[in-house]
Amino acid sequence: METPQRILIKNALILTMNARKDVFYGGSLLTEGGKIIRVEPGEIVPEDVRNLRVIDARGGIVMPGMINTHTHLGMSFFRSLADDRKDRLRKVLFPLEKAVVTDDLVYWASLHSLTEMIQGGVTTVFDMYYFEEAVARAADRAGLRAFLGETVVDSPSPDSPEPYGGIAYARKFIKAWKDHDLITPAVAPHAPYTVDGPHMIECRDLARSEGVPMTLHLNEMPFEMEQFQKEYGTSPVVRLDELGVLDEGVVAAHCIFTDQRDREILKERGVGVAHNMAANIKAAKGVAAVPEMLELGIPVGLGSDGPMSGNTQDLLSLMGTVSQVHKLVRLDPQAMPPSAVVEMATIGGARALHIDGITGSLEPGKRADIVIMDHSSPAMFPVYDPYSVLVYGASPRDVDTVMVEGRILMENRKIPHLDMSEIRSRGQEFYQKICALPALNELGLQAVRPQN
Amino acid sequence: METPQRILIKNALILTMNARKDVFYGGSLLTEGGKIIRVEPGEIVPEDVRNLRVIDARGGIVMPGMINTHTHLGMSFFRSLADDRKDRLRKVLFPLEKAVVTDDLVYWASLHSLTEMIQGGVTTVFDMYYFEEAVARAADRAGLRAFLGETVVDSPSPDSPEPYGGIAYARKFIKAWKDHDLITPAVAPHAPYTVDGPHMIECRDLARSEGVPMTLHLNEMPFEMEQFQKEYGTSPVVRLDELGVLDEGVVAAHCIFTDQRDREILKERGVGVAHNMAANIKAAKGVAAVPEMLELGIPVGLGSDGPMSGNTQDLLSLMGTVSQVHKLVRLDPQAMPPSAVVEMATIGGARALHIDGITGSLEPGKRADIVIMDHSSPAMFPVYDPYSVLVYGASPRDVDTVMVEGRILMENRKIPHLDMSEIRSRGQEFYQKICALPALNELGLQAVRPQN
Repeated sequence: METPQRILIKNALILTMNARKDVFYGGSLLTEGGKIIRVEPGEIVPEDVRNLRVIDARGGIVMPGMINTHTHLGMSFFRSLADDRKDRLRKVLFPLEKAVVTDDLVYWASLHSLTEMIQGGVTTVFDMYYFEEAVARAADRAGLRAFLGETVVDSPSPDSPEPYGGIAYARKFIKAWKDHDLITPAVAPHAPYTVDGPHMIECRDLARSEGVPMTLHLNEMPFEMEQFQKEYGTSPVVRLDELGVLDEGVVAAHCIFTDQRDREILKERGVGVAHNMAANIKAAKGVAAVPEMLELGIPVGLGSDGPMSGNTQDLLSLMGTVSQVHKLVRLDPQAMPPSAVVEMATIGGARALHIDGITGSLEPGKRADIVIMDHSSPAMFPVYDPYSVLVYGASPRDVDTVMVEGRILMENRKIPHLDMSEIRSRGQEFYQKICALPALNELGLQAVRPQN
Repeated sequence: METPQRILIKNALILTMNARKDVFYGGSLLTEGGKIIRVEPGEIVPEDVRNLRVIDARGGIVMPGMINTHTHLGMSFFRSLADDRKDRLRKVLFPLEKAVVTDDLVYWASLHSLTEMIQGGVTTVFDMYYFEEAVARAADRAGLRAFLGETVVDSPSPDSPEPYGGIAYARKFIKAWKDHDLITPAVAPHAPYTVDGPHMIECRDLARSEGVPMTLHLNEMPFEMEQFQKEYGTSPVVRLDELGVLDEGVVAAHCIFTDQRDREILKERGVGVAHNMAANIKAAKGVAAVPEMLELGIPVGLGSDGPMSGNTQDLLSLMGTVSQVHKLVRLDPQAMPPSAVVEMATIGGARALHIDGITGSLEPGKRADIVIMDHSSPAMFPVYDPYSVLVYGASPRDVDTVMVEGRILMENRKIPHLDMSEIRSRGQEFYQKICALPALNELGLQAVRPQN
């Protein structure tokens, strides 16, 4: 990764995503030492032109790097396997993970996912999986800003023969990585239906004592809602709040099924919400009440969910669906307008992760996490409204340049510091291995055959 | 456009979309004189290798060219203008069209749209707009298979000062173009609420006497449904059937609001349906009962709708939404599986247009309308299930090669016979002109300013 001392982006259509949502036509942006120092509607003429890298963004849209608030990077080699099967989590995923998930697979699958993120203009991710130490090595190599939650479950998991072994793994992982520049280790109790109360509290205590975030799946499954209603007479959100585990260090993924009381608790505790529209509707679960959450002031970001669920991990593929489906649900074409969706993909995600002080918008003082979109593809023209173009028209091919803290990860669609053919070739090996698993046939999956 | 005499595609994962939905891994396909002559699961060794173009499709997915059954090609320079405004049709679109739509604009906007189609793997379109003669010239230059319906409305239109002037235009247009190889002229009464009964019949008579198709918007608008209920005590479908205008020469776009009786009529009359999911939900109208239509045997294809509605015109951006939203509506993760969506995008669309005898699947005897998808982008890997990969993961960047009747329109993502910079530059001129329209400010649109 190249780290120019200073970068000047000029002739840019800049979506600042600041509090006023300023849009600058023909604007300029200057970075220094990984931070944005100036963002202006006109030309910037720097006094010092030494070590200055100039990027002419004419014909492009400059926006904050996007924030994927919920994914499972290590699952990318399972993508398209057994899509749409009922009870896939327990019948396919858990046995599959038990059979093949290793530190090595997670490393390469995560690196593969991170190339997808970079190509899609994502600069910050909140991941949740096993072997998070491997994810951390991959994220460090890829150069993204990453929050990495080690999963904790009530059964043996790929990285732990003991139930709840993730807690010990997380404890060690957090200590080892918590001083990294871009990587924040975290703990991720899987869900209220797979982590009991005492262990949920233990996870929360760990996160609090180490000063790191916690993430979990919450109010996601119809059976989860039923189970908590039956056992506790209330919802998982309420139950977790009674246990004292909800606070602003928590990012809750999904929250598909919430009532007004749930949402008030989320707001009051400062919990961030990861809204995973495509994964949620593909799984036929439902649509989270995001307009109500935003109305109430809950910080909501967008998430792709994992590549077995999403199935893409960029947010550009997702934003149109988010806008369209909320309109359908409300029968209101003005629900969830494009600017609100771009907000969730950027500064909203930063708020959900409580990092809006350092990223999520293009403002002086913030880290230089920046994406330059190209609008040369036909679907991106004309730009009467840049938010509309991004939400309804953009796809990953339109991302040209991506930087994190002023390091250029991709330029002209090239990612020079990652060897894509090595990553794909390792992926092919894992793919062949998975295709050969007897377990796949036992699971009644249609014949899977390795492909050229 | 290059027209090799014969093309051999080898080492291909072939989705034939034939009646058995055969999928060949490592298969081969041979074309000759614009037709497919062999499609086989293994190697084809042609006896005659003269004038043989060999394409190694290793790492790709070979599928039938996709069929966009409903769009408005000439509107691409209006994309992102006043998205999501209520009553946009009458308050923004009709005045805008009156002010700027000319033969010249339609030609360049259509050519621009057609590059989007080619890049997105679309080989057949059914268009409906004004100045269809200009669309025909653009389609002829681009080389797609095109059905082009001249719009008829009860008010003055861009190409006619008189109400219903489109009928005379269509009459002339059909005579001039009906013997073209790839282009089929057609007539397009706008909708039951903009074309009265006698003129609807006149359109139908014209289409029948010339042996060309007819297309229209049908059962699309809540106010349309109310109006027909009030005036005729029934739905537009029933009313049009009473007028005798529905038959298998008709392609009905949208059909969002249908009851069982409507669907039985559509089935009985052999009407093809264009399902425009993204446009329909973006406009907060609703979701057509497509699973019920398919169950009944109605031929249903996918449509993008116009670029002010869709806003993309490829089908790859649309297929995931189609699959996901039908699952949501039914709360069933197995509703509208990926293979059914790919079917609608290919042979289903061909059935809706009644051209399944010549295109829509890869079978000997059919025209060589073929797309080769590349699965090198991270979102396209691995391919456990090619339908799933296409529907949930693919985007236009993954289209590598496109051919229509054996003519290669795009290869390695390059379209050599179209000058993209000329098309964009003409688009810029129209864009500047539209931005300068006083009418835009009068319409209360937010300040639109020309951009670099």
